[in-house]
Amino acid sequence: MFITLEGIEGSGKTTALPHLVDLMERRGHPCQVTREPGGTPFGQRLRSILLDPESGAIDPAAELLLYCADRVQHIRAVIQPALDAGRTVVCDRYMDATLAYQGGARGLGLDLIRAMHRLAVPSLVPDVTFLFDLEPRIGLARAWAAVEDGQRHQRESRFEAEALAFHEAVRENYLALARAETERFVIIDASAAPEAVVRQLVAALEARLPALSAGTPL
Amino acid sequence: MFITLEGIEGSGKTTALPHLVDLMERRGHPCQVTREPGGTPFGQRLRSILLDPESGAIDPAAELLLYCADRVQHIRAVIQPALDAGRTVVCDRYMDATLAYQGGARGLGLDLIRAMHRLAVPSLVPDVTFLFDLEPRIGLARAWAAVEDGQRHQRESRFEAEALAFHEAVRENYLALARAETERFVIIDASAAPEAVVRQLVAALEARLPALSAGTPL
Repeated sequence: MFITLEGIEGSGKTTALPHLVDLMERRGHPCQVTREPGGTPFGQRLRSILLDPESGAIDPAAELLLYCADRVQHIRAVIQPALDAGRTVVCDRYMDATLAYQGGARGLGLDLIRAMHRLAVPSLVPDVTFLFDLEPRIGLARAWAAVEDGQRHQRESRFEAEALAFHEAVRENYLALARAETERFVIIDASAAPEAVVRQLVAALEARLPALSAGTPL
Repeated sequence: MFITLEGIEGSGKTTALPHLVDLMERRGHPCQVTREPGGTPFGQRLRSILLDPESGAIDPAAELLLYCADRVQHIRAVIQPALDAGRTVVCDRYMDATLAYQGGARGLGLDLIRAMHRLAVPSLVPDVTFLFDLEPRIGLARAWAAVEDGQRHQRESRFEAEALAFHEAVRENYLALARAETERFVIIDASAAPEAVVRQLVAALEARLPALSAGTPL
């Protein structure tokens, strides 16, 4: 099984992820937890370029190419081998993030992103994608509070520095992707308290697990 | 004018480059010297990933995507603005290197490289390309001697560590590109002594300068 978590900054997906893994492993599905960008040593170096506010202005097409490079290496070196070994892969952000951020909010268009993937990235679609949805002003406030509380040393990324309108565009693009693929996407109301978010995630996973375990395409 | 220098490791193109610039500037063409990968601060970070032997195994498609990302940023931030400002751009390696190394020697195929460029990289073809041609065993011996002489601290790149057959494939691919575009390419016999190489370069440039200066497409 290949499970992805998607959402804007501060949506709580990274906090909820260990609960998802815990449930899966208790049900007998050993998990490989990973993320994009940065799921390989090579990708970790790209992540530091992509997210570092010091990187300054990166051309949107150059940014897209780096995300694709990270994904190719990640699929070939980590995701596909783990799936082949019978493990469940749980990935914090994946292709939908590229569609929502670079395709939508950066204005490159979904067609370009998809064409680029057809050309150079192995085709691997998640079995289920949890979209942690909330208003960007709440998500960003959470992300920034984590900095002020000393939980993080700095604003995590170039993306947090974008204007609210950018994050609103990302959210709208994520929701449009979810509406277009209702069988793959599960929308989580991420505006709730953390424990309520985890409850929603666990309930949604429990409901889908029989179909997922049976290998039925969702 | 947009001039590129191409060739395998140890072909002497980087040594010859200042002579080319000197000639151009004496003829009244101010030059912007640059290189790929690494012609921008962003690209410099990609260069360190691409050439560092410590980077280990990078998937060929991921490698290609990084070269394209470097090129997009380079064209938009450096090459096109310099050309727009009336400067001559002299670039140490460019798209033909991607075709010869990733398309040819890495086996991705020229069609993939060209499709990727059509999709994501601004179209900008050099006016003239000098191909420094020599046998790879001579080029590699030169490159390694430079390390032993202390002129360089380490073998410059992951590419120098490739087997001789890899460099022979790169050379053959470069020559095939030159044969396919005889108007754009000038082949320099790089097996000669450095001063003889520079003489060939200067003579070829002198011969082409009137047409180049007139803006006639070569």
